[in-house]
Amino acid sequence: MIKLNIMIRYKIIIEYDGTNYVGWQKQDNGPSIQEAIESAIFKQSGEKIELFGAGRTDAGVHALSQVAHFDIEKNFSEDSIRDGLNKHLRPQPIAILHAEKVNQTFHARFSAKQRHYSYTIVNRRSPLTIEKNFAWIVHKKLDTVLMRDASKLFLGNHDFNAFRSINCQSKSSVKTIDFFDVTLENNKIIFRVKARSFLHSQVRIMVGTLVYVGEKKFGIEDVKQIIRDSDRNKAGPTAPSQGLCLVEVTY
Amino acid sequence: MIKLNIMIRYKIIIEYDGTNYVGWQKQDNGPSIQEAIESAIFKQSGEKIELFGAGRTDAGVHALSQVAHFDIEKNFSEDSIRDGLNKHLRPQPIAILHAEKVNQTFHARFSAKQRHYSYTIVNRRSPLTIEKNFAWIVHKKLDTVLMRDASKLFLGNHDFNAFRSINCQSKSSVKTIDFFDVTLENNKIIFRVKARSFLHSQVRIMVGTLVYVGEKKFGIEDVKQIIRDSDRNKAGPTAPSQGLCLVEVTY
Repeated sequence: MIKLNIMIRYKIIIEYDGTNYVGWQKQDNGPSIQEAIESAIFKQSGEKIELFGAGRTDAGVHALSQVAHFDIEKNFSEDSIRDGLNKHLRPQPIAILHAEKVNQTFHARFSAKQRHYSYTIVNRRSPLTIEKNFAWIVHKKLDTVLMRDASKLFLGNHDFNAFRSINCQSKSSVKTIDFFDVTLENNKIIFRVKARSFLHSQVRIMVGTLVYVGEKKFGIEDVKQIIRDSDRNKAGPTAPSQGLCLVEVTY
Repeated sequence: MIKLNIMIRYKIIIEYDGTNYVGWQKQDNGPSIQEAIESAIFKQSGEKIELFGAGRTDAGVHALSQVAHFDIEKNFSEDSIRDGLNKHLRPQPIAILHAEKVNQTFHARFSAKQRHYSYTIVNRRSPLTIEKNFAWIVHKKLDTVLMRDASKLFLGNHDFNAFRSINCQSKSSVKTIDFFDVTLENNKIIFRVKARSFLHSQVRIMVGTLVYVGEKKFGIEDVKQIIRDSDRNKAGPTAPSQGLCLVEVTY
């Protein structure tokens, strides 16, 4: 007898506060977003599955619209997947905003056309309160005009070897940045970056490098040279994780 | 011998995450913002003083710009008051944004000309994550056009007896609302209200009443009647504290 397993693929959109998680990906050293959702899916369906995410956010990084997919045999309505998973995830700060059935050609990671990240700095003398887990506090006054100018150097296709963590496992360090902007509102500096994909810690190292520009440790020519030299040691520091947020993934 | 105490009055502007506090005012049942700052002032100056705040925010209510004043004998520069208090407040989510010397006629509470509060609702099916402590989640779809129309009924001088908590100790319940607006951005509804002063829980009961309007439990005529009847039992519920924020106090 042949048992025919017809799997149904669900795409979900997820919001989370990453503060108390080791990151998206399952790890031995603490709770991950992926594991929390896989466990909720098991509670809902009784099926042990693997969840595939669009962006493997690091510990402390947040998401407004992470996208993931999984396959199960049971057929649930889209609304009952969303509401059921939210029920099983409670009281964790992880919410399923949307669930839909998609066909088997859809892959949350490989079908993604563009990922949009934001990074938030609060540039002031006083420590953070409300935004403690959602921004990087930089006390020294930053020149955001210079930072914005320098950010444009990242646009387009470059070898970003100087802007990836030593743990990065990507074969190629060549990436294309589609959009990079730096805006200032009161004392909040927001970076918005879009690309098909990023190297490990790329956004955070680009932000750390732009902070050096804002502090006038680096000039525009220095940043050009850092890109050319492809040497991680010459770029700025890795900005702390809590300022980073996966804003959107498009397909 | 006569000892002449010349007191110096300092005005401070304070930001805080009120989540884990019993409110602004000192109480026996837990940590208050007032007590935390008074203790920091004592650590800095060795002087036991009373701190006067512009708005006595309740448990769970936040502030972007609470204003307070205190008198001490020691003469500190404005910057060293700000930085010193921040050092002694650490790691509590309370920050002194600004400190300045003012003359003895200034009173944080009684000199205030206008208080500006915001209230945030997230109107969606899924639970909150990042905004858990900073907004009220309302799952049922609200009609914000009706809410905005009804909010205008609160403008001007009225007896707000229907819109104050039974614990309110104000002699008169007549107040003047200078500004009231309701805006919708994506699924976030933001209420902005300005008045010289408010009754206890007034903003939260006005918001709760407008939510009943948004759910079509109340119409415009009902809200008019509730104002006229001056009966707390006829108004809507008190919106939960975590959505409320003291945004600004002007003098």
